[in-house]
Amino acid sequence: KVIWTLLVTILGYASTLPVGDDSICTAEELAKYSIIFTGKWSQTAFPKQYPLYRPPAQWSSMLGVTHSSDYSMWKKNEYASNGVRDFAEKGEAWVLMKEIEEAGEKIQSVHGIFSAPAISSGTGQTSTELEVHSRHPLVSFVVRIVPSPDWFVGIDSLNLCEGDRWMEEVSIDLFPYDAGTDSGFTFSSPNFATIPQDTVTEV
Amino acid sequence: KVIWTLLVTILGYASTLPVGDDSICTAEELAKYSIIFTGKWSQTAFPKQYPLYRPPAQWSSMLGVTHSSDYSMWKKNEYASNGVRDFAEKGEAWVLMKEIEEAGEKIQSVHGIFSAPAISSGTGQTSTELEVHSRHPLVSFVVRIVPSPDWFVGIDSLNLCEGDRWMEEVSIDLFPYDAGTDSGFTFSSPNFATIPQDTVTEV
Repeated sequence: KVIWTLLVTILGYASTLPVGDDSICTAEELAKYSIIFTGKWSQTAFPKQYPLYRPPAQWSSMLGVTHSSDYSMWKKNEYASNGVRDFAEKGEAWVLMKEIEEAGEKIQSVHGIFSAPAISSGTGQTSTELEVHSRHPLVSFVVRIVPSPDWFVGIDSLNLCEGDRWMEEVSIDLFPYDAGTDSGFTFSSPNFATIPQDTVTEV
Repeated sequence: KVIWTLLVTILGYASTLPVGDDSICTAEELAKYSIIFTGKWSQTAFPKQYPLYRPPAQWSSMLGVTHSSDYSMWKKNEYASNGVRDFAEKGEAWVLMKEIEEAGEKIQSVHGIFSAPAISSGTGQTSTELEVHSRHPLVSFVVRIVPSPDWFVGIDSLNLCEGDRWMEEVSIDLFPYDAGTDSGFTFSSPNFATIPQDTVTEV
């Protein structure tokens, strides 16, 4: 059963031709997408340990980035960065935003950061717009599961470019991950750091 | 004493000349800004009824819009829209996003929506980028105060255009407002709807 679905729809693209030569993506340089999240975390669909008390089931702000293959926000079976850990454990985005900005400045691997408002219940929607570039056609993001020890849903390096064109629409089911940094076993577990830190795994 | 400060810094502007004729803003058509919020809600600075228990003092996602004078997100001494009420009471952004999109489609009064991640403590920072247009040079946003009955901080129609140029930097102290829809008297008061609804006032 899925706990989230995601819909990414193209809004338009700039008609500038790419200046890239050996780049794999030869679509128009810039494309704008709308991204819609649908939370499906209801007590009926997911009765197991559904959190009824404060905080009730809900989703954090979404923090995302459009980038090239030289950058990775998080990866399954690898260690989470400090920024991803802060976000997954506490919903605190600042360190992760700084990590992304740094990667953008140092290795030009980031096109832009985007975010969408939190959802105050387990079921509901949020959305935002994002822009990809033919040299930065990948999309990654994280949304923290609230309450939880360090669990999140997200996408790692979704490529919106298909050779010489931008994908029109993508719909994806999302599954929860454990950032490997807090050892609570249920949604409402108290904080208990995982030492040594573990890698990111599916919950 | 201020509970928030805001820093808006220009990132660059497009050199296209405006096609507008009698519009008051004759600056370059598009300008991009970085917006940074600093939360200053600490127990030392604001000991009165500082919320220590769950949820602790924190700030919601920021939801903002760049627009013309034909649109208003919220106004002091006027009634809050359903979208602003949902956001101020519950941090639920969906209705407000729909209201903004509708205004954009119907009366072309909206240039874009932006949002920034929540801050998981009373003190901290968050930021995002936004784009203004010479025909849509105004910025408005709301950030819900958590916990609170229906209190928020925000900006109503800040004009970033000064005649023929875009402002380089703006720094503003923000004050809390009451959306006039919930009658709790302290941060942690239980929900108690204000009937009839009251106007937006300073707390």
